[in-house]
Amino acid sequence: MTRIAILGSTGSIGTSALSVVDTHSDRLQVVALAAGNNVPAFAAQVRKYAPRAVALASGHGLQTLARLTNVPALAASGAEGMMAVATHPDVDILLCASAGTAALEAVLAAIACGKTIALANKEVLVMAGGLVMAAARQHGVPVLPVDSEHNAIHQCLHGRSLEEVRRLILTASGGPFRGRLRESLAHVTAADALKHPTWQMGQKITIDSATLMNKGLEVIEAHWLFGLPASQIDVVVHPQSVVHSMVELMDGSVIAQMGITDMRLPIQYAFSYPERWDAPVPFLDLTRMGALTFEEPARDDFRCLGLAYRALDADLSLPIVLNAANEVAVASFLQGALPFTAIPELISRTMDAHQAGPAETLTEVRRIDAWARVHAEAGVRELQSL
Amino acid sequence: MTRIAILGSTGSIGTSALSVVDTHSDRLQVVALAAGNNVPAFAAQVRKYAPRAVALASGHGLQTLARLTNVPALAASGAEGMMAVATHPDVDILLCASAGTAALEAVLAAIACGKTIALANKEVLVMAGGLVMAAARQHGVPVLPVDSEHNAIHQCLHGRSLEEVRRLILTASGGPFRGRLRESLAHVTAADALKHPTWQMGQKITIDSATLMNKGLEVIEAHWLFGLPASQIDVVVHPQSVVHSMVELMDGSVIAQMGITDMRLPIQYAFSYPERWDAPVPFLDLTRMGALTFEEPARDDFRCLGLAYRALDADLSLPIVLNAANEVAVASFLQGALPFTAIPELISRTMDAHQAGPAETLTEVRRIDAWARVHAEAGVRELQSL
Repeated sequence: MTRIAILGSTGSIGTSALSVVDTHSDRLQVVALAAGNNVPAFAAQVRKYAPRAVALASGHGLQTLARLTNVPALAASGAEGMMAVATHPDVDILLCASAGTAALEAVLAAIACGKTIALANKEVLVMAGGLVMAAARQHGVPVLPVDSEHNAIHQCLHGRSLEEVRRLILTASGGPFRGRLRESLAHVTAADALKHPTWQMGQKITIDSATLMNKGLEVIEAHWLFGLPASQIDVVVHPQSVVHSMVELMDGSVIAQMGITDMRLPIQYAFSYPERWDAPVPFLDLTRMGALTFEEPARDDFRCLGLAYRALDADLSLPIVLNAANEVAVASFLQGALPFTAIPELISRTMDAHQAGPAETLTEVRRIDAWARVHAEAGVRELQSL
Repeated sequence: MTRIAILGSTGSIGTSALSVVDTHSDRLQVVALAAGNNVPAFAAQVRKYAPRAVALASGHGLQTLARLTNVPALAASGAEGMMAVATHPDVDILLCASAGTAALEAVLAAIACGKTIALANKEVLVMAGGLVMAAARQHGVPVLPVDSEHNAIHQCLHGRSLEEVRRLILTASGGPFRGRLRESLAHVTAADALKHPTWQMGQKITIDSATLMNKGLEVIEAHWLFGLPASQIDVVVHPQSVVHSMVELMDGSVIAQMGITDMRLPIQYAFSYPERWDAPVPFLDLTRMGALTFEEPARDDFRCLGLAYRALDADLSLPIVLNAANEVAVASFLQGALPFTAIPELISRTMDAHQAGPAETLTEVRRIDAWARVHAEAGVRELQSL
């Protein structure tokens, strides 16, 4: 029996993960759950799975939870709560599926406790990939990617030596605005951007997908997960999202992983690794799909991708700034405070204002992140006044 | 330095293999060569590579060779010549790239001598897959597939346990007559059938590709190479030949191998395995290809595929009959003696007339093969008289 903890259990990935647990209840058991503010959904999960530790974002949330269901003795809020869930002694695998940067300390603590990490949160590696991967190596802990692209690459590599690898090729759906020129993107609304063509995901990641920043963050993530430089990580737009990513080998062979677009597949892969279990999803039937196409990303019209490469190529601290400024920009766009095309503009300005340098401790990471958020918030007001 | 022997050195695969040797002359050396009747081309190869042993189909060919170039002391013709080339003590890897069934004894002898087998000849496994694979296991000899489809599957499996595998999916270009109905195929000529859309290959295999028998033989070959039953080996038509084949895993993931259509890629894979060397071919650029499509094979219009499944599902001897009758049928078609649609008809009739049984020795294999050829030749005359 593999014992699972989930950070972000009421989100899109969290609920998919619980569905995988339901499918394989003879092999998987939920022992700890953490969520943000969706207390009614969380209460239902607590009733169903009876976890030994729970956490919510706020103490108020915990009080509400206690009125809705029986709460285990181990219940805490905020950073302390996430930490308790992530490091609970009964946990074998921690699925980190909460959005944003809040999980960083909890993930590092779980690694120190020897928990296997199933990682569905991009920010952890984008902000502190060096720290996290060094800790994982030090403690001999596997970091298994749950993002469909990195999960695909993990499957394609399958233990192959990096010396055989010429390029990792991340596929991108291109998002809802694929094929549109920069000028035509100035007036798109949040509702337009939230219509993702192939994947059902949370709001933040869906906007990131529309700007191609999602793919940019994935390039940075791939760098840390697989240990290859930016020059060996490419992006190709593949609107059908059937090929989840590829590895090009030095002899010209390309190994690809394909599947239906259902996150239960990579989640189960991470939970079952190195085994493989029966399908939690329908099988892919290529003869019933339309044609598969591949095109270069429109880097001039979707500038976020280039910004991510710039951040990765530069010094350690720049991806932290990129990520923080992007979070501020996306939140502002979702609130209607900034137009879509201002997202890369705000990120670029914040990166320009940053003096890049090392980020070798969690304190430094948090300081740079905080600086970037403050600077980006000021940038929002600046852009609004233009 | 890996020392190579080639059976069929003047054919399409043989010359591609020599091109791979030229590219990696620091790691590969030709020590023995055998060819059929193309003496001028063979003489040029003998001059260039100075092999220690040579063989040609006939003694007359050897005499001609001696007038064209210096011949090594070890030179023989016919079955004896192939055997001497295949088992030469200096050989590390035997590439079996001769067409037809003549190489069977030589391959078995090479296995007994502990040579690694790079197999580009389908008939060896279709006729005697059980014998060959049992011998390979007994002598601990790898059999590395050079057919692009099986080579792709070998790369996709990459040491994965068969328990993880749900299906092997062989891709088929569909050949030059894809989409045409059976009625419209009655009057196609050999010249029409030899226009393969994506691969440059020898005549026999190009006709087999047009009838889909090539894919049928590959299903049988895959059964022996990878140890899975017919029910777990599928065929999908993929006209662009970019995806060379796929493995569907039990959790719904599909692993595919892609590349340009150049046989140097799988040949080099077999020569370098388990290493991987620099590309002998241009890299695949998916963004410059057209769309990739997949469809079910038209089993009713191209009956040879179903005949191969029938042969594999039945007893051990039926694939021998299928293969022999197909060779007779294709030769008759190429000579204009039979129409295209008579190819499956002749094979089906020959299979119907065969009393299936075990084929556990080379003598039995040869006897059944001989019977099937005689019976199929008679069948040609019968079909001509209709």
